[in-house]
Amino acid sequence: MEVYLDNNATTQPLPEVLDAVAKAMTDGYGNPSSSHAKGARAKAALFGSKTSVAGLAGGNPGGLVLTSGGTEANNLGFSSLFRRLQSPRVAVSAAEHPSVLRPAASASGGRLTVLPLRRDGIVDLDALSERLEEGLDIVSVQWASGETGVVQPIREIARLCRAKGAVFHSDAAQAFGRVPLGLDDSGIDLVTLSAHKMHGPLGIGALWTRNVGLLSPAILGGGQQDGLRSGTENVPGAAGFAAACSARASRFGNDVARMTELRDRFERVVLAAVPDSKVNGASAERLCNTSSIRFKGVDGQAVVANLDRAGIMCSQTSACSSGRPEPSPTLLAMGLSEAEAWATVRFSFSVMNADQDADTAAMAVAEVVEKLRRFMVLP
Amino acid sequence: MEVYLDNNATTQPLPEVLDAVAKAMTDGYGNPSSSHAKGARAKAALFGSKTSVAGLAGGNPGGLVLTSGGTEANNLGFSSLFRRLQSPRVAVSAAEHPSVLRPAASASGGRLTVLPLRRDGIVDLDALSERLEEGLDIVSVQWASGETGVVQPIREIARLCRAKGAVFHSDAAQAFGRVPLGLDDSGIDLVTLSAHKMHGPLGIGALWTRNVGLLSPAILGGGQQDGLRSGTENVPGAAGFAAACSARASRFGNDVARMTELRDRFERVVLAAVPDSKVNGASAERLCNTSSIRFKGVDGQAVVANLDRAGIMCSQTSACSSGRPEPSPTLLAMGLSEAEAWATVRFSFSVMNADQDADTAAMAVAEVVEKLRRFMVLP
Repeated sequence: MEVYLDNNATTQPLPEVLDAVAKAMTDGYGNPSSSHAKGARAKAALFGSKTSVAGLAGGNPGGLVLTSGGTEANNLGFSSLFRRLQSPRVAVSAAEHPSVLRPAASASGGRLTVLPLRRDGIVDLDALSERLEEGLDIVSVQWASGETGVVQPIREIARLCRAKGAVFHSDAAQAFGRVPLGLDDSGIDLVTLSAHKMHGPLGIGALWTRNVGLLSPAILGGGQQDGLRSGTENVPGAAGFAAACSARASRFGNDVARMTELRDRFERVVLAAVPDSKVNGASAERLCNTSSIRFKGVDGQAVVANLDRAGIMCSQTSACSSGRPEPSPTLLAMGLSEAEAWATVRFSFSVMNADQDADTAAMAVAEVVEKLRRFMVLP
Repeated sequence: MEVYLDNNATTQPLPEVLDAVAKAMTDGYGNPSSSHAKGARAKAALFGSKTSVAGLAGGNPGGLVLTSGGTEANNLGFSSLFRRLQSPRVAVSAAEHPSVLRPAASASGGRLTVLPLRRDGIVDLDALSERLEEGLDIVSVQWASGETGVVQPIREIARLCRAKGAVFHSDAAQAFGRVPLGLDDSGIDLVTLSAHKMHGPLGIGALWTRNVGLLSPAILGGGQQDGLRSGTENVPGAAGFAAACSARASRFGNDVARMTELRDRFERVVLAAVPDSKVNGASAERLCNTSSIRFKGVDGQAVVANLDRAGIMCSQTSACSSGRPEPSPTLLAMGLSEAEAWATVRFSFSVMNADQDADTAAMAVAEVVEKLRRFMVLP
């Protein structure tokens, strides 16, 4: 038996994604820069793929630059902005992924401001307003947390930034396909998208911008994608990304309702069955698929390991940080103690989960936590 | 009818590559950084893929950093070296791809030396030696030209560079799988590899180094690949790359002989049937699959377009430069006139071509050139 509840780390590609990738690798192979028929067909396919991706994001496809994933997109956004500005004043939320934090820290030269979170995981907008008053060039706040699922008031943040002339970037790798982005009307300048969190392929993502003038290339070469990102375009990856976006677009409401149902069903059982268990960020708007639960006095990593032995896969924090032995900075920023952060486990659902997955996992969680509480000497 | 002779632009993935990609996207999906069973399996698969790729390259797999392709690998090599050295003295051959030339030019700040080519396309080693005597920090010479197929005396260049303490990088995107690289014994410091020129997937490549201490990351984030290239690894892409490498490794001699046979068969007919046609770089060692032929007084682009209408796909220069209306810098550096450069057409074969492809194309070339010579007013 295998129950996969780690869909914020990566998701299983949909069958239609596999088909689109395979098609692009057989009939559709070709270099979009080639001047012959096969090149022209690859170029047209690539354009179609960009249109589908931009479609789900509600943004102009002309503002979409394909990258090798969300991490490269975040890096491209920051390197572009840092190239335009001399020692920029940068603020990021305390919940950012390392692929935002590290480029921001590396390039801002000690001028990086970290915006605090409220207890519910929402960025403290008063602190942001104060910082904007003092002067900021760039603000980056993730659309939704991969750890807690907490969705930020992105439109409000965009409005505040715009009013003070700061460029606003949002990493929507976890939000894309789970909340409507509506980029054209969002007021956001730069948005990071990823395919593999929404049943698309690994190795493909995008940076979207309302103004391509903000971008300058980080990878130089043959001048593909209007010179903004050189390298032969990943036509099959883009086709797979597009197929995932089209599938989601065609049943967005149903998919979101389905993920919400799975998550709520799971949380209901766990909270009822496990004493002293609490959902992090429960009072905020959360992603439909994400459940971050702390089990008082229990080591979350032990819960993860015990569940893994039972075939149930989840995680303690984001996969990109799994190797690092430190409590989640996001949870600490929400005011949780170190012990509470260590006691937290993340479960993330997808439309490919069955009701049975939620039930099996919830029962197993209850058993594992009870066992751990019984046998472990607590600090 | 469709005859694809543009395999230096991109190749059709092998059936076993499609299978490997599909398998990694179904049973094998998972984030290699996840600490559960699915993550561990993805991590193991990724390690196996790196081993296969490094195996065909004859290099230590520990020196392999996966990238989104050859362009990113070239950029990573240069950005690493430029980060270590203050205003480095850089020399590149006159035949380099834009993904080497442009990072080199952008970062060397006016100190970029372009090494001349001999008439046969080989880099002028006397000029290189002189420059090395004057002092160079970085030398980059492609392993083989995608335009003419000319193979450089890479081991000799590596020896010269090593003797003078210059770091040597070679872009082997076109050579990989077509000539044995034997990286561990090559004396080369950094080598760029690409999958999609050898029937692997688009969107995956690698930078290999004998000394990971030479590298510093260009893309920051979760610290994947020992911190040298962040971003969730493209596990299916790597699996496809590995499948292409394993296939090539298992029948290397046969594949090379087969491509040589196709190319020679094609050249024999064309040279016999078309007066005033000459193979560029004919006296040098050339890639087994590449034929660069100039047809005196004829516009190569017109040949390409006419052949395309007949279902035969080839190109005038590298795909990455197809959009740019200028004669090939590589051919000019070999001492060809602008007219000779414009009169050149590149045909590149693969093991997926049939004998019939070579015959059909050769006959069509003869017809098209004759027609163009009859009807066009020559300058």
